[in-house]
Amino acid sequence: MSLNSFGHLFRVTTWGESHGPALGATVDGCPPGVPVTEAQIQPWLDRRRPGQSKATTQRKEPDAVEILSGTFEGVSTGTPIQLMIRNTDQRSKDYGEIAEKFRPGHADITYWQKYGIRDYRGGGRSSARETAARVAAGGVARLALAELAPGLEISGYMVQMGEKKIDRARFDAGEIARNDFWCPDPVMAQDWAEYLDWLRKDDHNSVGAVIEVVAKAVPPGLGAPVYGKLDTDLAAAMMSINAVKGVEIGEGMAAAALTGRDNADEIFMGPGGPQYSSNHAGGILGGISTGQEVVVRFAVKPTSSILTPRRTITRTGEETEIVTKGRHDPCVGIRAVPVGEAMMACVLLDHILLNRGQTGSAPGETRGRIGE
Amino acid sequence: MSLNSFGHLFRVTTWGESHGPALGATVDGCPPGVPVTEAQIQPWLDRRRPGQSKATTQRKEPDAVEILSGTFEGVSTGTPIQLMIRNTDQRSKDYGEIAEKFRPGHADITYWQKYGIRDYRGGGRSSARETAARVAAGGVARLALAELAPGLEISGYMVQMGEKKIDRARFDAGEIARNDFWCPDPVMAQDWAEYLDWLRKDDHNSVGAVIEVVAKAVPPGLGAPVYGKLDTDLAAAMMSINAVKGVEIGEGMAAAALTGRDNADEIFMGPGGPQYSSNHAGGILGGISTGQEVVVRFAVKPTSSILTPRRTITRTGEETEIVTKGRHDPCVGIRAVPVGEAMMACVLLDHILLNRGQTGSAPGETRGRIGE
Amino acid sequence: MSLNSFGHLFRVTTWGESHGPALGATVDGCPPGVPVTEAQIQPWLDRRRPGQSKATTQRKEPDAVEILSGTFEGVSTGTPIQLMIRNTDQRSKDYGEIAEKFRPGHADITYWQKYGIRDYRGGGRSSARETAARVAAGGVARLALAELAPGLEISGYMVQMGEKKIDRARFDAGEIARNDFWCPDPVMAQDWAEYLDWLRKDDHNSVGAVIEVVAKAVPPGLGAPVYGKLDTDLAAAMMSINAVKGVEIGEGMAAAALTGRDNADEIFMGPGGPQYSSNHAGGILGGISTGQEVVVRFAVKPTSSILTPRRTITRTGEETEIVTKGRHDPCVGIRAVPVGEAMMACVLLDHILLNRGQTGSAPGETRGRIGE
Amino acid sequence: MSLNSFGHLFRVTTWGESHGPALGATVDGCPPGVPVTEAQIQPWLDRRRPGQSKATTQRKEPDAVEILSGTFEGVSTGTPIQLMIRNTDQRSKDYGEIAEKFRPGHADITYWQKYGIRDYRGGGRSSARETAARVAAGGVARLALAELAPGLEISGYMVQMGEKKIDRARFDAGEIARNDFWCPDPVMAQDWAEYLDWLRKDDHNSVGAVIEVVAKAVPPGLGAPVYGKLDTDLAAAMMSINAVKGVEIGEGMAAAALTGRDNADEIFMGPGGPQYSSNHAGGILGGISTGQEVVVRFAVKPTSSILTPRRTITRTGEETEIVTKGRHDPCVGIRAVPVGEAMMACVLLDHILLNRGQTGSAPGETRGRIGE
Repeated sequence: MSLNSFGHLFRVTTWGESHGPALGATVDGCPPGVPVTEAQIQPWLDRRRPGQSKATTQRKEPDAVEILSGTFEGVSTGTPIQLMIRNTDQRSKDYGEIAEKFRPGHADITYWQKYGIRDYRGGGRSSARETAARVAAGGVARLALAELAPGLEISGYMVQMGEKKIDRARFDAGEIARNDFWCPDPVMAQDWAEYLDWLRKDDHNSVGAVIEVVAKAVPPGLGAPVYGKLDTDLAAAMMSINAVKGVEIGEGMAAAALTGRDNADEIFMGPGGPQYSSNHAGGILGGISTGQEVVVRFAVKPTSSILTPRRTITRTGEETEIVTKGRHDPCVGIRAVPVGEAMMACVLLDHILLNRGQTGSAPGETRGRIGE
Repeated sequence: MSLNSFGHLFRVTTWGESHGPALGATVDGCPPGVPVTEAQIQPWLDRRRPGQSKATTQRKEPDAVEILSGTFEGVSTGTPIQLMIRNTDQRSKDYGEIAEKFRPGHADITYWQKYGIRDYRGGGRSSARETAARVAAGGVARLALAELAPGLEISGYMVQMGEKKIDRARFDAGEIARNDFWCPDPVMAQDWAEYLDWLRKDDHNSVGAVIEVVAKAVPPGLGAPVYGKLDTDLAAAMMSINAVKGVEIGEGMAAAALTGRDNADEIFMGPGGPQYSSNHAGGILGGISTGQEVVVRFAVKPTSSILTPRRTITRTGEETEIVTKGRHDPCVGIRAVPVGEAMMACVLLDHILLNRGQTGSAPGETRGRIGE
Repeated sequence: MSLNSFGHLFRVTTWGESHGPALGATVDGCPPGVPVTEAQIQPWLDRRRPGQSKATTQRKEPDAVEILSGTFEGVSTGTPIQLMIRNTDQRSKDYGEIAEKFRPGHADITYWQKYGIRDYRGGGRSSARETAARVAAGGVARLALAELAPGLEISGYMVQMGEKKIDRARFDAGEIARNDFWCPDPVMAQDWAEYLDWLRKDDHNSVGAVIEVVAKAVPPGLGAPVYGKLDTDLAAAMMSINAVKGVEIGEGMAAAALTGRDNADEIFMGPGGPQYSSNHAGGILGGISTGQEVVVRFAVKPTSSILTPRRTITRTGEETEIVTKGRHDPCVGIRAVPVGEAMMACVLLDHILLNRGQTGSAPGETRGRIGE
Repeated sequence: MSLNSFGHLFRVTTWGESHGPALGATVDGCPPGVPVTEAQIQPWLDRRRPGQSKATTQRKEPDAVEILSGTFEGVSTGTPIQLMIRNTDQRSKDYGEIAEKFRPGHADITYWQKYGIRDYRGGGRSSARETAARVAAGGVARLALAELAPGLEISGYMVQMGEKKIDRARFDAGEIARNDFWCPDPVMAQDWAEYLDWLRKDDHNSVGAVIEVVAKAVPPGLGAPVYGKLDTDLAAAMMSINAVKGVEIGEGMAAAALTGRDNADEIFMGPGGPQYSSNHAGGILGGISTGQEVVVRFAVKPTSSILTPRRTITRTGEETEIVTKGRHDPCVGIRAVPVGEAMMACVLLDHILLNRGQTGSAPGETRGRIGE
């Protein structure tokens, strides 16, 4: 019952602080026989890596992943895979003031209260650097998915920054990798770029975001009611990411405004099995995947580390102000995109293994056939 | 790793189908010495019970809870508490058509595909009747909370039905128990009553809802980063409830639209410790409770069981239409209110025990003191 | 992390006290599509049932199992199976003295110290009646094994009572069901009968025993190093049975006296794969089954509930004597035989599911082939 | 449900292979505020380290532990502690023959069968090198125990090598650290030295052993019936150690030969609470510690890696012979002593945290008082 672990059969335990010597993930339960090498995982880390554009923190971390165990001659052996990422650019001096003051909206105060000790350097364990370990683990999950569910594709992107939402009519999947924001709307990408520039330089402020992660060609039958539902595990996975305050499946919160008539995804018979008139459900019914696209969205709050002074208290209870001078992302949501994808990969792989364990169905098979 | 269990130290396993002989919850890890009797738990079940007004399904179930183990002379012994609720009003004939057809937007098709067998009577395991077991378990959790964290209060209510949202300016806590909708806004309660009447009788339709659950006097220090965060566990708990499609903590999805300056809950020194200028965070920072109110919202989709015909397929793959004639709730969100409260109670108790286990702090104590 | 649960994917949670209204097992993770009926499980309970001979307690319990959930038309659905057994013959008056005094060698004192409350009637949760729930769960496991690993057979028997060990030269599997002791040695069975009669009637005493449980045709590849080893889980399963003080795999404690040359099970090539010259390992190497017989032994201590007075203290700390008058087994080891078999069944099924989940191998398949 | 993890609240996940770059343990759930430094853990590793005498393998490993996370300024923060040990002396050439042949009595064949791939270098994951990670984790557990249960002492020693048992009349605790065998009997230590020398050099053989681990001043009330019993968890912990084939608590297997009259540990009232006339139970009743010494023994089989040829098969199914030339311990039981101690430390700490979580009792406190 490690509280720094997630997953059932594919189980990931992350460890490490922002300014310690290293951080990483212990990945247990990977199927044997999967090609897993550092070179295959590194690209996912590179996508999340800070310091790549002015839109994200200027901290320079190579985030080079080292595999310390669990593979042999480039292939997984079924034993735990240790993924280690060294911290190299720890300018601790930036964080001096934070040792005594609590940043509003930050884990500083709660870690102190709970534990009576905290590694204040860069947020310690509460730093978004922890998500690098998730991305590494997600890289392993993707490699296993490539073997077990070859057509399955996971794609994350930003659909909202502050009050600015993308126009779904302009959605262009090819655009996502072309801008600094994983934005599928080229017009909005430009708008966001200007907004963020102003926000950072002139307004000394930060802003929230909404990320959407979609998985295509998800096998039907994944998810184990009622407390291991696919949507339950996705909600937990996304909510565990730093700064996330809301999670939606399919219609999400907007489902409240719909009627049953409008919300029903009607069913037809297609060549490869059931087809649906729509996907309000986000690909999950009763906690089990339908075979449609699995659609998850989550909201990331604006970082509390800003250059604008905020009122707070010190550890000794004195009232004061704080300005966070370190190198921080004006929109942490941007870097949450690869993290959300990684969590999706881990959850889907885990449920493929679970489903295979209980029902004996290989990915894409189902015990109950329709039309036979 | 039971997939029908939730919680870490206070661990609840539910079992049972809609139309089997009984359903219930196996509650493990309750602290010893807590007064726990059927009479104390029954009122919570009565609140969730169907057949109480025309706003909910007309199925008549007494939902009488029986304690089969884990107490002695009315007090918990620390051993598993078995809570059983018999099913009495199972008119299976209502469900004949569903044996062959899949209701759109319902778990029928996914259970069939995954398991190759399903108890189609009333939805079987996927029925909302499962939530009665949660409410019973939540009753035990509340009794333990009354001992361990005496001031803690949990209150759930509906804030939106369809597109109709309450006016927070009219919020009246006393009103919640006075109407059929757990609505804190008396004007909106009247509006909803008329709307639901029309929806059910004339429109043969159903509608979604948003429920908010608030816990007051939550001890600071609850939650165990990074995968046992308090908000992570709350998100999982709420998303596991039938028909829930979105979960929010504090500002929730709206946090995306805020800037860091606006979203920061500034900190002051009050007589009893830190005070905050606002509660955008919903009482949780870095996954750990601050001592502020913990605020969770979740969206319940409209039920797919409606009298309006919807297109679907049969088990043999033929296209057809379906009309669900059974006794169904036009707004299942109403009965989700006590369920959300129960989940909140279970999660908070669990984290009180976890925090006490790891840090040694009794509820309300913290290892890190401020201003001393 | 229920502490009243065992198993990973096939997970059993037991509940109930000796003198409460009922006890049972919540079985989660059973594969769907397995024929499971009360009539099929009852015979296993009948084997464990007390009151069948003068060798065991005279308490009369029908131990009739009721399935409350998880099956539909006699077949498992993949949802939790609730197995309930009512207590009917609770002569609580027998246990009056125990309310105030602690029986030496019994859980009375530790339950009191730990929890500050105990159900003293018949030992409450610490009673061997709890094992009826294990046998019921084991019955479900056997039904699933019959589907998944058809040739697999589990057989338990007693090999030692007090200082009297069976003569393995006289081992006759057919004899096991013919006597009251599950004794495979007909000569020793007669000897034990006379000894136990004297022990109970004249000596007012009780005695320990050693039980051996063997599983044949166990698929190779079961067990998940290094903390989910097959032998680790078997050791935990057996040690969790009431009164068990030692567990052995294969040679067990005697392995200490062997040299590497003698202990090596040499390997040959047989028609169906590897064959071994011997089975010192008890069918498990490195925590993984070899395909040989899995052999487990465990020692059951003599019950502390005897008619001979023993010195003890009361709850108020006064020194006194105690004589346990209730209906107790002079050799609780006898009734542990079906319990040991049940635990073996649960552990093997669990590891078949786990192995299928991680490696994708159906029972009897292995990813690594030899001689191909 | 990581299968490379053990423990409930104090949860240890080990990772790494014999000849990979490193191995280690991810320790989650350590209480905050515990002084934990590399210098404090290293001595425990030094005790287990190979190459220290001719009695153990000549592989030279410094086994230097590095703490990569979870501490700040030398004190635990409550976040995961990563303990890494680099492998430095990996003479892989020694292991060439093992790539194609399976050593009898070794995990070679089962890893191959299960996973279809194995890191044959030095046994990979099945190597006893994995136990270094346990010892490091046990070092952390000891530091936490020093804070939480200051008087608690854990001591392991060998009581049997081959057929040669110590004479308990000569038991001298001070002797344990003075010889190469953790032997408390100075006469037997000399006998073993000569025997082992002969066994290794002349007989080209290996031999088994029995280790006893005793914990003194264990608080009463530890252990959570019925599947988290203290003895259940100890049995699993010890059985998970490489080459262990049997585990005993208190009287162990010998309990079978006792009568109830002889086995009863009679209870008296002492100045500090209950006192017992004897300790047949090994300090555990009903799965809960009594406050007496907790006594565990386990048998370690002789290593299968010997210079004497044994018959076996190759991966292609050909029959052959094997001689294991590498650097191996003639009595692996010797190095299992510190490992058994480490497992005891981890289990006791875990149960102190669990007991505190559920019952609220600090170590040494109990909810039920006697004589008050």
